[in-house]
Amino acid sequence: MKSLSEEQKSHLKNYLNEKKALVDKALRAHFPDAGGPAADVIKAMTYSLFAGGKRLRPILCMTSTSVVGGVDDDVIPIACALECIHTYSLIHDDLPVMDDDDLRRGKPTNHKVFGDAIALLAGDGLLTEAFNLMTADSFSGSIPEAVLLKVIRLIARASGYQGMVGGQVVDIQSEGKNLDFPMVEYIHKHKTGALIRASVLAGALAGGGDTDQTDALGRYGEKIGLAFQISDDILDVEGDSAIMGKGSGSDEKKKKATYPALIGLRRSKEIQTGLVDEAIGTLTQFGDRAETLRLIARYIIERKK
Amino acid sequence: MKSLSEEQKSHLKNYLNEKKALVDKALRAHFPDAGGPAADVIKAMTYSLFAGGKRLRPILCMTSTSVVGGVDDDVIPIACALECIHTYSLIHDDLPVMDDDDLRRGKPTNHKVFGDAIALLAGDGLLTEAFNLMTADSFSGSIPEAVLLKVIRLIARASGYQGMVGGQVVDIQSEGKNLDFPMVEYIHKHKTGALIRASVLAGALAGGGDTDQTDALGRYGEKIGLAFQISDDILDVEGDSAIMGKGSGSDEKKKKATYPALIGLRRSKEIQTGLVDEAIGTLTQFGDRAETLRLIARYIIERKK
Repeated sequence: MKSLSEEQKSHLKNYLNEKKALVDKALRAHFPDAGGPAADVIKAMTYSLFAGGKRLRPILCMTSTSVVGGVDDDVIPIACALECIHTYSLIHDDLPVMDDDDLRRGKPTNHKVFGDAIALLAGDGLLTEAFNLMTADSFSGSIPEAVLLKVIRLIARASGYQGMVGGQVVDIQSEGKNLDFPMVEYIHKHKTGALIRASVLAGALAGGGDTDQTDALGRYGEKIGLAFQISDDILDVEGDSAIMGKGSGSDEKKKKATYPALIGLRRSKEIQTGLVDEAIGTLTQFGDRAETLRLIARYIIERKK
Repeated sequence: MKSLSEEQKSHLKNYLNEKKALVDKALRAHFPDAGGPAADVIKAMTYSLFAGGKRLRPILCMTSTSVVGGVDDDVIPIACALECIHTYSLIHDDLPVMDDDDLRRGKPTNHKVFGDAIALLAGDGLLTEAFNLMTADSFSGSIPEAVLLKVIRLIARASGYQGMVGGQVVDIQSEGKNLDFPMVEYIHKHKTGALIRASVLAGALAGGGDTDQTDALGRYGEKIGLAFQISDDILDVEGDSAIMGKGSGSDEKKKKATYPALIGLRRSKEIQTGLVDEAIGTLTQFGDRAETLRLIARYIIERKK
């Protein structure tokens, strides 16, 4: 695979910034300034929500929608909901009873700032709010209600014990153990892959994609979801901790189950490249309309954080 | 208010047992036997789900539906979802970083059996599963999709930072502090009242209730929700710990904000009785059809656990 050209990089950077701004604006509008008796949990929720996330899942959702002819406005609440779910998973994952991390994206983790109890509840609040967002009165008009119900179900399944939560369970139970390759693949596909796949698929469904289109985009999402987690593993070994905003080598310290730990860096990169190639291969039917999805797939390998 | 007669008690007991069996059967059918890599989280979820809950919220939902002419089958997935949300809130509430309770309904709490990390994830899994349940393919046919979206939204708002999570935040922050009465009322209305109100209202909406009917049932739910939490406070002072399955007097030990602590037992009981009277007062338009809701309202005061 060729590296992204400077022109492609610049185009993609502008695109990602523009979409990120849309998501940030919608999230800011949705969450009130913290007030009232429960102000601290609102502060804690928005602290992590605006702690510098890339908005990858929302952007994938919006981009996927555009590929099948939908527009951003149609899926902004779904995109915001995906970011709420992602953020909740990070807050709970960082808690002392889970990974016990002090830093996330260069900032103190939620519980370091607000304490463990409020962090726990902020996570609960964000997860719950995702489903409030997707069912907002203002929103149900633009997407057929039956499709919206399908999207909610898809996202719930990808986030719950059959998806992300299931992956986190196996991940936390695997620390310090010798795992075989199928188990590490299971963790990656569930803990990270499932919600990324759901983000792409939700955009495709909400944008009115037909079965052929949603099948193809679902496969794309599955491939880049796994590739993304492998690139996280690789960045943890090779990455610049100043750019990443967390210490590199932390997976090794915690004896986390990673691709590099199990099959080495070189083989991990080969698998990752293969997945991105396969992801791009699923997009043929969309022609030029899927160009941004191709760039995003390639960006996943080249990113530095 | 008169006490329930023996005949009423017996009728209500049979009714509650019959509806509880329906909910238990549906929950058993929905959750698989624990298997696969994430088996432990399924075990942990079902451990708490089948640890002897009264199924009050599901039963309120089904009973409310019947009052407006709906049938149990229409709302079973919503009823199960309400129980999942309630159970998740108990698991998280019992965690060491929250109330740090060892016993719940006479059994070891989730984290005592499965460890803190799995208990946290089991709670996350149950909350998420609630939204999978309510959007199941098999289900969307029986309730108009627009109504189902409204129900999901209502339940999400009642459970999140504007509802239950908000109440838990203030509750946890209030331990050991001197709270004023409005703040204790806030905690009770949000931590417990919001989901009970939502249970009644969800049943009314899903059963096809008109605005007058849903308004009345929403008020009923609000009143009994608050009365239920006050009765919990009173049971903690007066209750028989063998019957309740947890130590009595635990609120006092933890310096929890309760009605009895703030305004005394006698005044608490007066307020509780007033709320149940008001709740019953909202049901006039339904005549005999609402008789079970009246009995449930009165049962809330007389219950021993």
